[in-house]
Amino acid sequence: MEEEVPGAMGTSASLALRLGQITFSSASLLFMSFRIEFYSFTSYCFLVTIMGLVIPWSTALALLDAYSIFLKSLPRRQRIMLIIIIGDWVLSFLSLAAACSTASVTNLLVEAGEQYWPLNLCRRYQLSAATAFFSWFLSFGSSLFNLWVLPSL
Amino acid sequence: MEEEVPGAMGTSASLALRLGQITFSSASLLFMSFRIEFYSFTSYCFLVTIMGLVIPWSTALALLDAYSIFLKSLPRRQRIMLIIIIGDWVLSFLSLAAACSTASVTNLLVEAGEQYWPLNLCRRYQLSAATAFFSWFLSFGSSLFNLWVLPSL
Repeated sequence: MEEEVPGAMGTSASLALRLGQITFSSASLLFMSFRIEFYSFTSYCFLVTIMGLVIPWSTALALLDAYSIFLKSLPRRQRIMLIIIIGDWVLSFLSLAAACSTASVTNLLVEAGEQYWPLNLCRRYQLSAATAFFSWFLSFGSSLFNLWVLPSL
Repeated sequence: MEEEVPGAMGTSASLALRLGQITFSSASLLFMSFRIEFYSFTSYCFLVTIMGLVIPWSTALALLDAYSIFLKSLPRRQRIMLIIIIGDWVLSFLSLAAACSTASVTNLLVEAGEQYWPLNLCRRYQLSAATAFFSWFLSFGSSLFNLWVLPSL
């Protein structure tokens, strides 16, 4: 039995990270798009697009982790790990970019246009940006843990 | 003589990367702050702050590289490399965040308020965001190259 790095592919810490990503990105998507109009600003459309990419990616990897933990331990191949690391990496950069854009546009709306934009809506946009930041942090974490395992393969 | 990784600390490719970072971040700072008011938006203040951190950091490391190339090859210590990698990493994330915020706020200004904001100013904000993106890309690059060298120390 080789030494296990917590957080790498196929461990329970990795499953927890993936579940956190799914939770936070779904929350961000719901806060942004549930029964309010988001398509009037480019940044908000960008956030919705990116979260729509993060959710299926994290769900697929969470299923892989769950299979590996509960049924049969899957072997780690170097090429597959590389694909997972690069995917996590790109998605974490994109979700950081989306979170920053959303946060700055929302901040501008709160400061400049309180008479036009109800504060209630801005609260929801802020919550959406905050959960997108959490989702960025978690997917960056799983990318780093997998990178740590890569040289030992 | 050990094998040299191009782009790692103390090679000429690293010096080129650092000079590119200095150029782009200075350009971003100048486009943003030279003779126009930038302090009316939080994102622009953030960009100016981050660029004010990136410029001295890159200058210091460029001087270190130039010393190592032209005068005397400095030994690479693991602890120093770790500090450099983490610093590059954090600064690259911060400059990505600043570039995204600037780009999205500028986009909002261009779309929504052409009657209030002269297009001339918005051009300059856009240029500033673009050069900040280049600076992010280069500092992310040097962080990756240094990370590549780390396991061999």
